[in-house]
Amino acid sequence: MYPSKMTNAHGVENSVLLADIGNTYFHIYNGSEIEHLSYEEAIRKYSKEALCYISVKQQLDSTIANISLWKNISKEIQLQGAYETMGVDRRALCLSHDDGIFVDAGSAITVDIMQNGEYIGGFILPGLKAMLQAYSSISPVLDTELNETISLAQLPATTKDGISYGIIASIKALIDKHSDGKKLYFTGGDGKLLSSFFEEATYDEMLVFNGMRKALKATSR
Amino acid sequence: MYPSKMTNAHGVENSVLLADIGNTYFHIYNGSEIEHLSYEEAIRKYSKEALCYISVKQQLDSTIANISLWKNISKEIQLQGAYETMGVDRRALCLSHDDGIFVDAGSAITVDIMQNGEYIGGFILPGLKAMLQAYSSISPVLDTELNETISLAQLPATTKDGISYGIIASIKALIDKHSDGKKLYFTGGDGKLLSSFFEEATYDEMLVFNGMRKALKATSR
Repeated sequence: MYPSKMTNAHGVENSVLLADIGNTYFHIYNGSEIEHLSYEEAIRKYSKEALCYISVKQQLDSTIANISLWKNISKEIQLQGAYETMGVDRRALCLSHDDGIFVDAGSAITVDIMQNGEYIGGFILPGLKAMLQAYSSISPVLDTELNETISLAQLPATTKDGISYGIIASIKALIDKHSDGKKLYFTGGDGKLLSSFFEEATYDEMLVFNGMRKALKATSR
Repeated sequence: MYPSKMTNAHGVENSVLLADIGNTYFHIYNGSEIEHLSYEEAIRKYSKEALCYISVKQQLDSTIANISLWKNISKEIQLQGAYETMGVDRRALCLSHDDGIFVDAGSAITVDIMQNGEYIGGFILPGLKAMLQAYSSISPVLDTELNETISLAQLPATTKDGISYGIIASIKALIDKHSDGKKLYFTGGDGKLLSSFFEEATYDEMLVFNGMRKALKATSR
């Protein structure tokens, strides 16, 4: 699903590395593809290169601030209508298009709605892994894996399917309720899987980076 | 919400204590009211009295088997259409009425559908507490309490509300999707709270015990 090759038509911001530092992974776009690295790997590999980043991983702030070639561009990610504590990755994701529903399915699943370039609101669900852990924390009987091809057309009749259905169908029911003809965009580690349960959905790993580039372009004018 | 006083019109099964041993609490019906006790308290208080129980807490099985006055009636809880590993508390809950949607909101939230006295299927969600823990396990930023009066009429615009909305609205959207004119019954520790988000819903702490009594009556015939 990686874009084959980026042209430089997007301007200077394409020449630096872009990083989206999430709750679990470091996502780096190098102009042609996206790498998903651990924090340690990312710092080891890229600390000697110029890089613009956004981060929701507050625990890393002081470590990263010491890397002189890395620039925090969170303040440049301006999203009209956003609320104060809204994560910067969600802001960047929403900036990628003026209209639509934006689902980032990572450690958490965020669902945000944009209309005419303005942020309308959104909600947060635990990610698929955190959901499975929540079940297993309740009882060993509920400790199971996700049935990734669960049918939503019929009610389940096993514990594993009852859990898989509970996770997927509840997310889908709430997103569907808000769809209202809007285009549906997915990104994040579980975005492709989750998008497979919707009839018309776009999965695109570049959305957050596209939002970052759009913000950089706007501020460089 | 306790029933004021039980008559003995229901027959002999009213004379013994009934216990529903869940993943977190011991629920005991003494013929007039329901007590929610810790495992230790329940055993200390009632081990010298005759008691019929169902249990999903496998870790307690060997301890309880040693209490001679307590009788496991799980095998009597026969629900037509049930799947093999379906929890006995869910079976008892479904036995309480021949038709409806049955939501038990405890450590886990189970949603089960009955039609003409037959079990149709159901699904499992993490309980409200397990959901909140799932968020906080992802990031300290997502460590919050539930806004128990969250409005579902508009999209939230704070992290706390985005999480509260994510929890409540996703459960509600999936239950609503299956409602289809069926009566909606809630039980369990968070049942009353959850039922407040539905226009027509019955909250009744007695449902599981009513199912147990129905099963005992059927086998005593």
